[in-house]
Amino acid sequence: MPQPPVAIVFDTFGSVVDWRSSLIAELTAFGAQRGIAADWAALVDAWRAAYQPSMQRVRVGEVPWQTLDELHRTSLDRLVAEFGIKGLTEADLQHINLGWHRLKPWPDSVAGLTRLKSRFIIGPLSNGNVSLLLNMAKNAGIPWDMIFGSDLFGHFKPDPETYLGVARLLGLQPGQVMMAAAHNNDLLAARKCGLMTAFWPRPTEYGPHQARDYEAEHAFDVVAKDIEDLATQLGV
Amino acid sequence: MPQPPVAIVFDTFGSVVDWRSSLIAELTAFGAQRGIAADWAALVDAWRAAYQPSMQRVRVGEVPWQTLDELHRTSLDRLVAEFGIKGLTEADLQHINLGWHRLKPWPDSVAGLTRLKSRFIIGPLSNGNVSLLLNMAKNAGIPWDMIFGSDLFGHFKPDPETYLGVARLLGLQPGQVMMAAAHNNDLLAARKCGLMTAFWPRPTEYGPHQARDYEAEHAFDVVAKDIEDLATQLGV
Repeated sequence: MPQPPVAIVFDTFGSVVDWRSSLIAELTAFGAQRGIAADWAALVDAWRAAYQPSMQRVRVGEVPWQTLDELHRTSLDRLVAEFGIKGLTEADLQHINLGWHRLKPWPDSVAGLTRLKSRFIIGPLSNGNVSLLLNMAKNAGIPWDMIFGSDLFGHFKPDPETYLGVARLLGLQPGQVMMAAAHNNDLLAARKCGLMTAFWPRPTEYGPHQARDYEAEHAFDVVAKDIEDLATQLGV
Repeated sequence: MPQPPVAIVFDTFGSVVDWRSSLIAELTAFGAQRGIAADWAALVDAWRAAYQPSMQRVRVGEVPWQTLDELHRTSLDRLVAEFGIKGLTEADLQHINLGWHRLKPWPDSVAGLTRLKSRFIIGPLSNGNVSLLLNMAKNAGIPWDMIFGSDLFGHFKPDPETYLGVARLLGLQPGQVMMAAAHNNDLLAARKCGLMTAFWPRPTEYGPHQARDYEAEHAFDVVAKDIEDLATQLGV
């Protein structure tokens, strides 16, 4: 690594927070409390499977720009019908949709980010919208300096407008910004835009369905064990 | 106040940080160190006097959108010539211009904001750009949850796109957001957009040149002594 970055931006879903376990736990408790039976784990997996296709419809212009909250809600409505889940009110559906605002961090995330914040500008660079990422940070105690939601750019990753938009808003060159993630594809796209890159694996992100991202598949600037180890390798 | 806000956004220059004393102190020390003589206090006052006119040229479309950093630099170059200050290199001018990134908070600001952050979403809503406000927060230890720079909106206050843009990014109604400032005009503009309002005075902001904003001139939702008192009045 020729010189350290000035700012580090983090993929969030899967890289910083454990969306699958968080949502399954919350929905299972919610279902038990409300007496609503469903295969909540299957619903969560299907919901996440709808994530990329729903953003792709925006990317190709098939539907106008909308936030991830809105895409999540459209997918949820469809899946509730497909799964035949009965008894959910509009308030229930809104509450469930905002479950993405209440995801829990992986055990090393808050400690590692707190260390990194002492020397670097840190923020999420996520396909989540600002309100989602901000509410998540408040709930979980994630100490971001700034929230880079996709609604700031009107684009979802891996569109270059996101990675380059961060550099522009920070008044930095792309090479002074490091993209940090547990996903090879995100980092490859960031590297094409001239950003530095850092990888660590989250081998249980998808539970039994994990199919990739067990290890760094390219020569990223830093390959770490987790965010605490990233902090160690960056000297904080 | 019918019900408390969800988020509170703060005017920054003058309301949270003491731009005049900060810049005069820094430039005086810089001039002494570099052996460059100038009436630094007068330069700072003239620089600030150029603030509203420079933004007005953007507001009316006389010049294209640009960041406050860029407007500050244009004004600085003109004033250095007008004041006949000699011996400043390009690096010096860049360093001086970034003095706005290093402004110091008023004594109550960090303590009051830290208390408010425990219950509310807090952020600056400033005519400064994101990088200016973020670097300032890192330098001064200001614990913002999110940075609402004018470059997120492509508009300067008091354009409604700024106040309403915060509500949109937060997924809130305007009435759930409180604008907090030491300036009556800023709060009036926010109130016209439906935001809640909080005022406290900064009677030494302009030093001997202060001409207004000694007190709240309208029935704002909260009138406080300072940011610590605002926290007290909001129950945190």
